[in-house]
Amino acid sequence: MSIKKTEIIIKPLKKFNLEEGDVLHALKSSEKEFNGFGEAYFSTIKTQKIKAWKRHLKMTMNLIVPVGNVQFNFYDDQKDILINTTIGEKNYSRITVPPMIWFGFKGLSSSTSYILNISDINHDPHEVERQPLSFLNFLSK
Amino acid sequence: MSIKKTEIIIKPLKKFNLEEGDVLHALKSSEKEFNGFGEAYFSTIKTQKIKAWKRHLKMTMNLIVPVGNVQFNFYDDQKDILINTTIGEKNYSRITVPPMIWFGFKGLSSSTSYILNISDINHDPHEVERQPLSFLNFLSK
Repeated sequence: MSIKKTEIIIKPLKKFNLEEGDVLHALKSSEKEFNGFGEAYFSTIKTQKIKAWKRHLKMTMNLIVPVGNVQFNFYDDQKDILINTTIGEKNYSRITVPPMIWFGFKGLSSSTSYILNISDINHDPHEVERQPLSFLNFLSK
Repeated sequence: MSIKKTEIIIKPLKKFNLEEGDVLHALKSSEKEFNGFGEAYFSTIKTQKIKAWKRHLKMTMNLIVPVGNVQFNFYDDQKDILINTTIGEKNYSRITVPPMIWFGFKGLSSSTSYILNISDINHDPHEVERQPLSFLNFLSK
């Protein structure tokens, strides 16, 4: 919790196939990407819809997509693209996002996709900045 | 984290409907059901399948079903049924389960259901006890 993270980290996660239903890893407190627990919540994104743009001033996010597939775009302060990647059922991974990164995401599945965010702080509207979709170019490819 | 919890707690959770996709609460560190963060992981359960029986000797579980509907049975040490309830999309709630409770669950949706467990300890096979389905009566109604 004392380490200042400044990098976006993408880490493949394990999925165990069992007869009655799978087990999917998300986050352990022993992993270096764990930055403390404030809140866990889900955001869903419908087919071909985009939620953008938003950045957190304080929150570090840990994003996991157990259901569906979601394309994420991350931009820095200078409006330079940092990462354009897709995670979800086809690429079961976690994205750790430090504060001050602009992000947007798009639902790529034919049904609604689910994003779990395990954040290091409780929801606080004062630490969120929002901009309209036109603020940055959402790269769909 | 210092409070010893001995009761199963079922709490309705908030779901916010947004145009591009919903936001679903899961757990905040400020809630009394929060017992510390060890690990978050998903278990899935296929249609009409049952996973049973298991109990944790140390873990407190926080169970949330964002996708599908899952019937849970909880039994005490004396093999007495404590709770038989269904949570999921139709009843979006969280179940907090202290250690030493036998539990089993069944997938009620026509597609796979997803259970998020936010546990207060890291996975440890030594603190899990398992019994076959015949050990206790899974109440489907």
